[in-house]
Amino acid sequence: MRCDGGVSALREFDRMWDDLLPVGKVSSGGYRRFAWTREDHTLREWFAGECARRGLDLTTDRMGNQWAWWGDPDAAPGEGIVIGSHLDSVPDGGAYDGPLGVISALAVIDALREQGITPSRPLAVVNFVDEEGARFGVACAGSRVITGALDADRARGLVDSEGRTMAEALAAAGRSAEDLGRDDETLRRIGCFVELHVEQGRAMADLDPETSAVAIGTDIWPHGRWRLDLPGMANHAGTTRLEDRQDATLLAAELVLAARAEAQRHGTVATVGKLRLEPGGVNAIASHATAWLDARGPAEADVRATVAALSDETAQRGGTVSEESWTGTTSFDQDLVGRLRGILGGEVPMLGTGAGHDAGILANAGIPTAMLFVRNPTGVSHSPAEFAEQDDCHRGVTALAEVVRGLAS
Amino acid sequence: MRCDGGVSALREFDRMWDDLLPVGKVSSGGYRRFAWTREDHTLREWFAGECARRGLDLTTDRMGNQWAWWGDPDAAPGEGIVIGSHLDSVPDGGAYDGPLGVISALAVIDALREQGITPSRPLAVVNFVDEEGARFGVACAGSRVITGALDADRARGLVDSEGRTMAEALAAAGRSAEDLGRDDETLRRIGCFVELHVEQGRAMADLDPETSAVAIGTDIWPHGRWRLDLPGMANHAGTTRLEDRQDATLLAAELVLAARAEAQRHGTVATVGKLRLEPGGVNAIASHATAWLDARGPAEADVRATVAALSDETAQRGGTVSEESWTGTTSFDQDLVGRLRGILGGEVPMLGTGAGHDAGILANAGIPTAMLFVRNPTGVSHSPAEFAEQDDCHRGVTALAEVVRGLAS
Repeated sequence: MRCDGGVSALREFDRMWDDLLPVGKVSSGGYRRFAWTREDHTLREWFAGECARRGLDLTTDRMGNQWAWWGDPDAAPGEGIVIGSHLDSVPDGGAYDGPLGVISALAVIDALREQGITPSRPLAVVNFVDEEGARFGVACAGSRVITGALDADRARGLVDSEGRTMAEALAAAGRSAEDLGRDDETLRRIGCFVELHVEQGRAMADLDPETSAVAIGTDIWPHGRWRLDLPGMANHAGTTRLEDRQDATLLAAELVLAARAEAQRHGTVATVGKLRLEPGGVNAIASHATAWLDARGPAEADVRATVAALSDETAQRGGTVSEESWTGTTSFDQDLVGRLRGILGGEVPMLGTGAGHDAGILANAGIPTAMLFVRNPTGVSHSPAEFAEQDDCHRGVTALAEVVRGLAS
Repeated sequence: MRCDGGVSALREFDRMWDDLLPVGKVSSGGYRRFAWTREDHTLREWFAGECARRGLDLTTDRMGNQWAWWGDPDAAPGEGIVIGSHLDSVPDGGAYDGPLGVISALAVIDALREQGITPSRPLAVVNFVDEEGARFGVACAGSRVITGALDADRARGLVDSEGRTMAEALAAAGRSAEDLGRDDETLRRIGCFVELHVEQGRAMADLDPETSAVAIGTDIWPHGRWRLDLPGMANHAGTTRLEDRQDATLLAAELVLAARAEAQRHGTVATVGKLRLEPGGVNAIASHATAWLDARGPAEADVRATVAALSDETAQRGGTVSEESWTGTTSFDQDLVGRLRGILGGEVPMLGTGAGHDAGILANAGIPTAMLFVRNPTGVSHSPAEFAEQDDCHRGVTALAEVVRGLAS
């Protein structure tokens, strides 16, 4: 017997989806929902309201991640089933990356209840904070801090583009930065974590949605972020001869092109999506350029080789490369992945992904973790054009409900 | 007989110099003094105070440029001698570009009085607003608006990096944007304008400061600013295959390098000092890049050819190039230049410059205009490292006093 999403649950899904559409929407049609901003506050209040509506017990951990429990997680330590994702976005991101997992998880509660099912294990919906790292530059800050993967002092000192530290942002949002740190009390409750997420590439685009709207995640590619600092010398754009210039913009341009070439050579992907020129005047030669490199690939050695080649090229130009984050290949829990496959059927697609997720951080912290991906017909993500069919989203709710039911029985 | 700067006048010069050193200074050691900001307000108040101290009649024109008159300019229309420059800066600019001309002009008043000279023609010190265009992107906005070279509606609608229009900035500074426009009443008073400015290249660096600390400007190179808009498609940096990408950062990098190559080929200079990537996230492929090009050179045809070649390369990549400003070769007034040469002596260096100035805008409006340049030993400008020797600055005051005395006699 299939555990369907249920008519009311899917209606609830649609209602919640519509609820969130206006929050943090900008003129591009995309979203700007950054950690500890007003938009983030609205989203957290909305999440708390949806949890209250369902009678879930809402707790907040040392980093401010929100956990809404159905059943007492402390009565059965290590037994809790956790589902959910995050509500924040990249700059001008889409509506699906994050919210789809949170809304689907809330709808799963409705689906189970609609069918009179009370899980035999505690069940939680989680909303992780600051997954995208759009504001402070470190992705998955919420899950990294509570698992100890990100040092609390380093987190507190991270600075946003306006020079505000995370500690200051937390204080402005009415939270104490003193609380930050590994949260064993929270981790102890988690028996397993299943994060549902919109697929972010074209891996499922050409599959039949009738049978393959949902895939099981097998692993996350190794990935990291590096900062390239490139030297120049400030000078007047009109009066300085070309041969007298030390123009940091030129170095940045060379390294942007080198990053693409090295990625091609090593079978990886490399991206410069953020770049800062100083002083930044139209008629001033740049005295400094900072470029941020995102590099990933199926194999750790290839990603490392890509970055090493770029480090050499940067050093040749008098610049430096600093590693801001690095996560090796993350394999999801083989037992859990096997159980999901058993529940959803052997024909369900299995998928490795180049995107990082809180699920990866929890997996690296030793928590049995897996993911479900919902089909993305264009592969576009981190863009206003990110999209998934409503039917496929509903299939995601159904699949996640089946998974919870299967794990809880 | 030389009209020396005079001991008290040079002491006043040094005092005024020290007064301004802290205003708008930032951690780089340079200055951020942008139009209609708090720093600008402080500078304008300071200027008003120095004028009051000298009993000059301060007036403000339709754009907010400050004119401090010694003698009644309306009693002798078209006879006024105007000296001065501007007090704003580029981002992280130096202390000399602008303020040297204003402070020297004020010190000239002191020098003349110290020697008991009352000019036979009205004499004014001017402080032009927004010369650098650092905030709203159009250089010499103050002189362009009052001469009609910049349309008042266009000026009002210019937008700063925070999305604020010049009209809003003026209102916030307590001024009415309604006033903006060509100001014939002000222009009618000006018989000639002599702007003293720090040299911004190495043209005088190797000359003997004893004899050649000051040069006479002959012309301003043709120069302009262009905005390059380059298309991309937002997508996820981890999950999008290289071959599926439309990455605006790559196009920007190619055009930065092309700009240098085309400048080299055409004997011009071309600079990209300001660049914006959207959405600007580390893990998002850029959906749009905007690069600002500054191009100049001794010959108009060569600058035009540089930009035309870049326009072709931009169009080939699906982008567009928009001209934000263009000023052809500006020759200073031959009679006035000749008189300055007569006053200062035939051995004084004559200099064409790649930098734009309010003097150029006034010259193009038909006002007899010339410039004096003070030696720059390193050629560095638009940089915290911009520098001139104190002795050379004092020689500038002396030369400008001689010029005023000669013109007024």
